[in-house]
Amino acid sequence: MGFAFEVVKKDPSGARLGRLRTPHGVIETPAFMPVGTAATVKGLTQAALEELGAQIILANTYHLFLRPGHELVQELGGLHGFMAWPHPILTDSGGFQVFSLAGLRQVSDEGVLFRSHLDGSEHFLSPERVIEVEMALGADIIMVLDECIEAPAAEGRAREAARRTVDWARRSQEFFGREGDSQRQMLAAIIQGGTHAELRRQCADALVAMEFPAYAIGGLAVGEPHEVTSEITGLVTARLPEEKPRYLMGVGRPEQIVDYVMRGVDMMDCVMPTRHARNGSLFTSLGAISIKNAKYARDARPVDEECGCAVCRRHSRAYLRHLFLSNEIVGSILNTCHNIHFYLDLMAKIRKAISFGNLSELRSGLQARLAERSTPGGVAE
Amino acid sequence: MGFAFEVVKKDPSGARLGRLRTPHGVIETPAFMPVGTAATVKGLTQAALEELGAQIILANTYHLFLRPGHELVQELGGLHGFMAWPHPILTDSGGFQVFSLAGLRQVSDEGVLFRSHLDGSEHFLSPERVIEVEMALGADIIMVLDECIEAPAAEGRAREAARRTVDWARRSQEFFGREGDSQRQMLAAIIQGGTHAELRRQCADALVAMEFPAYAIGGLAVGEPHEVTSEITGLVTARLPEEKPRYLMGVGRPEQIVDYVMRGVDMMDCVMPTRHARNGSLFTSLGAISIKNAKYARDARPVDEECGCAVCRRHSRAYLRHLFLSNEIVGSILNTCHNIHFYLDLMAKIRKAISFGNLSELRSGLQARLAERSTPGGVAE
Repeated sequence: MGFAFEVVKKDPSGARLGRLRTPHGVIETPAFMPVGTAATVKGLTQAALEELGAQIILANTYHLFLRPGHELVQELGGLHGFMAWPHPILTDSGGFQVFSLAGLRQVSDEGVLFRSHLDGSEHFLSPERVIEVEMALGADIIMVLDECIEAPAAEGRAREAARRTVDWARRSQEFFGREGDSQRQMLAAIIQGGTHAELRRQCADALVAMEFPAYAIGGLAVGEPHEVTSEITGLVTARLPEEKPRYLMGVGRPEQIVDYVMRGVDMMDCVMPTRHARNGSLFTSLGAISIKNAKYARDARPVDEECGCAVCRRHSRAYLRHLFLSNEIVGSILNTCHNIHFYLDLMAKIRKAISFGNLSELRSGLQARLAERSTPGGVAE
Repeated sequence: MGFAFEVVKKDPSGARLGRLRTPHGVIETPAFMPVGTAATVKGLTQAALEELGAQIILANTYHLFLRPGHELVQELGGLHGFMAWPHPILTDSGGFQVFSLAGLRQVSDEGVLFRSHLDGSEHFLSPERVIEVEMALGADIIMVLDECIEAPAAEGRAREAARRTVDWARRSQEFFGREGDSQRQMLAAIIQGGTHAELRRQCADALVAMEFPAYAIGGLAVGEPHEVTSEITGLVTARLPEEKPRYLMGVGRPEQIVDYVMRGVDMMDCVMPTRHARNGSLFTSLGAISIKNAKYARDARPVDEECGCAVCRRHSRAYLRHLFLSNEIVGSILNTCHNIHFYLDLMAKIRKAISFGNLSELRSGLQARLAERSTPGGVAE
């Protein structure tokens, strides 16, 4: 029972191969978490996620708090019971959504007053209240409420948000220490500080001093160049304890993921594979393709000739294009299945490469192939 | 190779247990055909259909003719190759859609001029052209073009349409005899005549004289009472040769299906299970329920406590309601999976009952349970 994290192998690049034990199973890291906002990964049934080998999924506290409500979820056995997913789950704190989706926000040290994006109803979330909601939802890994700011943000604004985030983290930890169960749920802190190196360092140091069992890096990949995301990530992970898992929130593109792993990141989540799938953008070993492109109309080849997923084994680009243009549900299902397979397969390759000590070769190989994008032989656009 | 139909057992009620061999597999009859309009059953992947035990699916010639076009489908291996469904397929003639979906129709003995519901483009379909399109699509069972009329229709109008339908059937047969391959495709005639018994008899007799390998009954279940549908069906099947399969088009509700089977019907298709699923209406052994109903908000029970489908084994009404209210794709997937399982399971029960000689008991049992609908103990509405 309970939690344990073990770094099985550390690569000279900074990458880590790890195992995170949770009450609902072990997560091999580095891991990608498909996003299941409303207690469902859009387009994939739980059975499909199991077939794809998803180890853990992420659900959104903000959305579930508003609908169907955390008390209802709790009554039906928490998220694991409600959505019949007996494997690990992580809930975010809702911070990002309150600051990006909700209306009429009033932020104070006390918490956030906001209006639901669904019906305009007014709600107040404090750090303590968020933990209470996440305890009811019952995910294995839960996140503290953080203040997310617009990007780019001036140093003063970022400093204020980082200060508040640290203050909220302390209150969250105190509340969870009194009311929560650390054998059942792991509470992770979130490091903020925008793209300001010194702020990031201070925020990380303050949170590390509080000894959370896991650390997340938030507020990145919000418009800044990939190099900046990567650099900030690296300077933060350098200050984090080796023996605790690190989660980089909301990333990333396939070609960026190896970079983050080399910065010592263990877990990531991103809506990209699922959302892009529904928009007809499919990941391949030669880059992303847009399945609606007329050149695929009579293309009998699979999306990715090197892919072993159920979709590529069975269906042609021509068929997927037809489904997309016809706005058919099965188009979204198949596209999502392929994209999530692509991400999970990439993570498996990364873990294998760390294990075999050839992650740099994997990275060069990936980048070389993506460089073929613009060549006549490449399938990608 | 080729086709063969065998009536394995005939029930005193008129029901028949049969086996229809096609180039892509055997269909145990009575059979229900899920509707896959645009070469996809909305909400179910081909793998899911296989798991559910779908023996044959129906695709719509009108839709596929307009998009992606029958020539493209042919180039990609016909419907079987295009949609990667190596099992039996039936295509309708497009008659029903031309008369219900398309705009600006001009019907003459020559054929139908109409505008696409997609882009307003003008098209002409003659009986011969429809067979040509269906030969390109390559389904196992193909239907002749028929004239579908508004319901109810006056006797004169119905007579004219039935005359034209018979004339078109002859031309279709002649064309298919010259250009088609009866080892590869089975051409079925469609009996029209509205709700006019004498017209139906005449139409049936005329088409039977032409010796088609299979017969369909069209133009029913378009608003008339179930008793009328059933009666007309019975008087038509009474005139059809015993040794050929009979297909009643576009039916029906679960409780009606046993009646049609008792009228000697072997095959049926209907959008009801798939369309209702997407609208949140789920079939159960106690009648249909609307999953959005507030009373299911905290209901941990499966949709149907007697159902063994993958959805009922895993998910609660509360979760399905949440997915429906959140407009989630997985809601449509799970609802469709349940409803198609319900229909296919009903057909399996019907076949078993014919085999065991207790179809009447099955029918009484079904009706008795549906009568519980309004009782306090019943789950249905």
